[in-house]
Amino acid sequence: MPIRVTVWGENVHEHKNETVRAIYPKGMHTCIADALNQDQEITAVTATLDQPDHGLTDAVLATTDVLSWWGHMAHDKVDDKIVSRVHKRVLEGMGLIVLHSGHYAKIFKRLMGTTCSLSWREAGEKERLWVCNPGHPIAQGIDKYFELPNEEMYGEPFGIPSPDEQVFISWFEGGEVFRSGCCYFRGNGRIFYFRPGHETYPTYHHPQVQLVMRNAVKWAKCQGGIWKDGCPNVPVDKAPEKITTKGPTMHKPGEAGYR
Amino acid sequence: MPIRVTVWGENVHEHKNETVRAIYPKGMHTCIADALNQDQEITAVTATLDQPDHGLTDAVLATTDVLSWWGHMAHDKVDDKIVSRVHKRVLEGMGLIVLHSGHYAKIFKRLMGTTCSLSWREAGEKERLWVCNPGHPIAQGIDKYFELPNEEMYGEPFGIPSPDEQVFISWFEGGEVFRSGCCYFRGNGRIFYFRPGHETYPTYHHPQVQLVMRNAVKWAKCQGGIWKDGCPNVPVDKAPEKITTKGPTMHKPGEAGYR
Amino acid sequence: MPIRVTVWGENVHEHKNETVRAIYPKGMHTCIADALNQDQEITAVTATLDQPDHGLTDAVLATTDVLSWWGHMAHDKVDDKIVSRVHKRVLEGMGLIVLHSGHYAKIFKRLMGTTCSLSWREAGEKERLWVCNPGHPIAQGIDKYFELPNEEMYGEPFGIPSPDEQVFISWFEGGEVFRSGCCYFRGNGRIFYFRPGHETYPTYHHPQVQLVMRNAVKWAKCQGGIWKDGCPNVPVDKAPEKITTKGPTMHKPGEAGYR
Amino acid sequence: MPIRVTVWGENVHEHKNETVRAIYPKGMHTCIADALNQDQEITAVTATLDQPDHGLTDAVLATTDVLSWWGHMAHDKVDDKIVSRVHKRVLEGMGLIVLHSGHYAKIFKRLMGTTCSLSWREAGEKERLWVCNPGHPIAQGIDKYFELPNEEMYGEPFGIPSPDEQVFISWFEGGEVFRSGCCYFRGNGRIFYFRPGHETYPTYHHPQVQLVMRNAVKWAKCQGGIWKDGCPNVPVDKAPEKITTKGPTMHKPGEAGYR
Repeated sequence: MPIRVTVWGENVHEHKNETVRAIYPKGMHTCIADALNQDQEITAVTATLDQPDHGLTDAVLATTDVLSWWGHMAHDKVDDKIVSRVHKRVLEGMGLIVLHSGHYAKIFKRLMGTTCSLSWREAGEKERLWVCNPGHPIAQGIDKYFELPNEEMYGEPFGIPSPDEQVFISWFEGGEVFRSGCCYFRGNGRIFYFRPGHETYPTYHHPQVQLVMRNAVKWAKCQGGIWKDGCPNVPVDKAPEKITTKGPTMHKPGEAGYR
Repeated sequence: MPIRVTVWGENVHEHKNETVRAIYPKGMHTCIADALNQDQEITAVTATLDQPDHGLTDAVLATTDVLSWWGHMAHDKVDDKIVSRVHKRVLEGMGLIVLHSGHYAKIFKRLMGTTCSLSWREAGEKERLWVCNPGHPIAQGIDKYFELPNEEMYGEPFGIPSPDEQVFISWFEGGEVFRSGCCYFRGNGRIFYFRPGHETYPTYHHPQVQLVMRNAVKWAKCQGGIWKDGCPNVPVDKAPEKITTKGPTMHKPGEAGYR
Repeated sequence: MPIRVTVWGENVHEHKNETVRAIYPKGMHTCIADALNQDQEITAVTATLDQPDHGLTDAVLATTDVLSWWGHMAHDKVDDKIVSRVHKRVLEGMGLIVLHSGHYAKIFKRLMGTTCSLSWREAGEKERLWVCNPGHPIAQGIDKYFELPNEEMYGEPFGIPSPDEQVFISWFEGGEVFRSGCCYFRGNGRIFYFRPGHETYPTYHHPQVQLVMRNAVKWAKCQGGIWKDGCPNVPVDKAPEKITTKGPTMHKPGEAGYR
Repeated sequence: MPIRVTVWGENVHEHKNETVRAIYPKGMHTCIADALNQDQEITAVTATLDQPDHGLTDAVLATTDVLSWWGHMAHDKVDDKIVSRVHKRVLEGMGLIVLHSGHYAKIFKRLMGTTCSLSWREAGEKERLWVCNPGHPIAQGIDKYFELPNEEMYGEPFGIPSPDEQVFISWFEGGEVFRSGCCYFRGNGRIFYFRPGHETYPTYHHPQVQLVMRNAVKWAKCQGGIWKDGCPNVPVDKAPEKITTKGPTMHKPGEAGYR
């Protein structure tokens, strides 16, 4: 069965800005989904902010193996209820790919727990992404590095937890560096942050960006089972070792804990 | 100058439950603060849920080196605005010690990004905390292990990111295990989760629990400077290398980025 | 193509000790290989200390996807040259599963860089292995925990780097705990340490130990490509950005670096 | 009491190469020690390859809080016995700062367990080191970045385990990037790898390199106690819980384990 990807796009700039519309006439999300669908092991569909539940209903998430996320100017328009729903699914085992300005998306900040801040500059400068582990699944088919002729600059310090695996680090023409490909294991979910993708440049048309995205989908897909969380109470008579209750308790037997 | 600690306590059980009141007549927070103040290098004060801003005003946090947090039945009563304020300070460099049922405190969940779930049982069983690094600052003065005669059981799976340093793992009489002393580096803050402390047992009167708390304060205190976050724009003419703008941009020079 | 596993066994106790011989008449390595070969996705062969090159020639390693390692009393009989050969292959991308007393194998110590020390007791006591992430590939098919009626005890502190992923933690009847299932990413290799397997008990006949081994093989297998290391010199005229040499140099152009 | 530092220098280039001698007439190690001794909290002495035991006797190491290491062309001249001695002390709690070409020093490779490989170029190009956590103790007094006008280039992929804390990442004029300030916790030791320091440039005379070195000494110093390793046997009658031996054993009571 192919890997089922939902490509989420904010889809706002494409309607407000002539430059962005010209590059992505069908929206950035459609461009990304098309790139993923070039791989027969992947079936990608799209979802956008303006849809009911932002296109991310329980039914959609239940049949999504990997979610990709691009947002920028409307992060605060994303409903916290939907963020919680996505968050729960990621921790259960759904893969997540967060793109570019998604560093400030609610879902990314919630998963990282940090500022996710960085320094930035819009000058259309050259970015060169270096591979930190040539054997990593996400770097397959990429040489020592690849270049994007025009990109926004993101620079260190990047306010993230130490990545569990570092796949790319970027060099910028203007003199900065950035951890631009970062893998995280959180709960039972795999998260990949991938830096490139400023809306005023044709980054998602770039063949190596598309290749990295396809690789990332395969990496992020759950490799085991689902972790259904419940904070279960273990009754005294179900303890693995035989014990009897000593001293006072707060909860009555069978009562749920506080949340 | 001594390390300035604010001991935050929910302070609800102490008023609602006779058992808890009997053990902690002045509140758990006061017991903890008294234990910390036994060390001349530490000056501890308290703050509670019922105070304005839960006792955690900007002024209080600005003069707090390390915050300790105990909450249980009123996690949802903690104002999100105050959580954001504490979160910001931790990432800037304030130390944080999260105790026991604080695994479900808003501030801990926000910093970890995971479910922070676990299994649990209230049977007053024996807990034995094993030291995983005998040289660790937080384990100084503790032998190979220490025991608590009566505690609530918390069991794996514990829904946390892999700890940056593991200080304690617990053995329970009823047959479970738990990562009960976990260190994290997040932003510029140091976070220590310490498992023991169920309100119906006199855990915070225990000398070795008190010793671990004093050690943890010294470990959690900021060792360097403050990281003031701002997501700064770097103007093109301030780039370290001389560049000129190429292609279209989204922002006008000097404009702030989207959040 | 099935995953090609080489099961390495020291194969000494089986010849010196009547108890061990009775449990593993064909050797522990054969028992493990048989268990792996129950899965059609795996093809396991064996190699032992007494063979030329300990059975680990370049040709064998070149066609091994995952190597499993059990050793105990003859760690120091393993040729350093073979250890280096295995080490190189792991960093290139061969998976490695290290079993029980292999915590002191040369290859494990070389990969971890730490003491790999622990406390221990031979009393045939009960061990209960708790799952720390129910969704992890290595824990599939295992309930919340599984038990071994008789095992050697290994206790904390375990002298290892913080695991990249914690899969199991053990509870022992005698009162200790131990990080008994630990995942590491090193170079391009995946390493899984799995605690059970004392030679005087029939641990490798246990169905859940066998299941974990099969799961671990699938997890440890290289998911991407090979990382061939060379510490390459980048000649000045091959720099991605045009530069000219400034100041004095130590090496002549084209010269290899010092090792 | 001041922090006692031993600055180890290979001290070979200084005698063989006129350029190096001119920059460091008293040796690189003396230059580094002088820089450290500018701080009243530090007392630095030197040790070199040509001394008995390379100047690293048990007595010297026993009174060394932090060891700094620079080597290049004579890595293989360092006696394995001395490497083991240093390794043991680091895991017990001695801090270690590894400099530049020390990425290939035996002690660094042994602690990391990986290839420690990288790409490199000697062109005297500009290096700019970016701070990844402005609040980190090692980055205090450093602005967003600092520059070295002439340095050897080290480029990714750098064959190291994921750093526990990333302090610096370098940008090179020729187009590469490198994780140039990496913190590790191993056993009870703190290890800092710091990239700059090619022998043909006056890097260790640079005020900000010197400042980072002084900061690193303070960071690397043991903050807790010593971890004396012994792989202790726990006799059955000393188990925390009362147990009796079941089934056969390999060792007689009191016997040491195999190593």
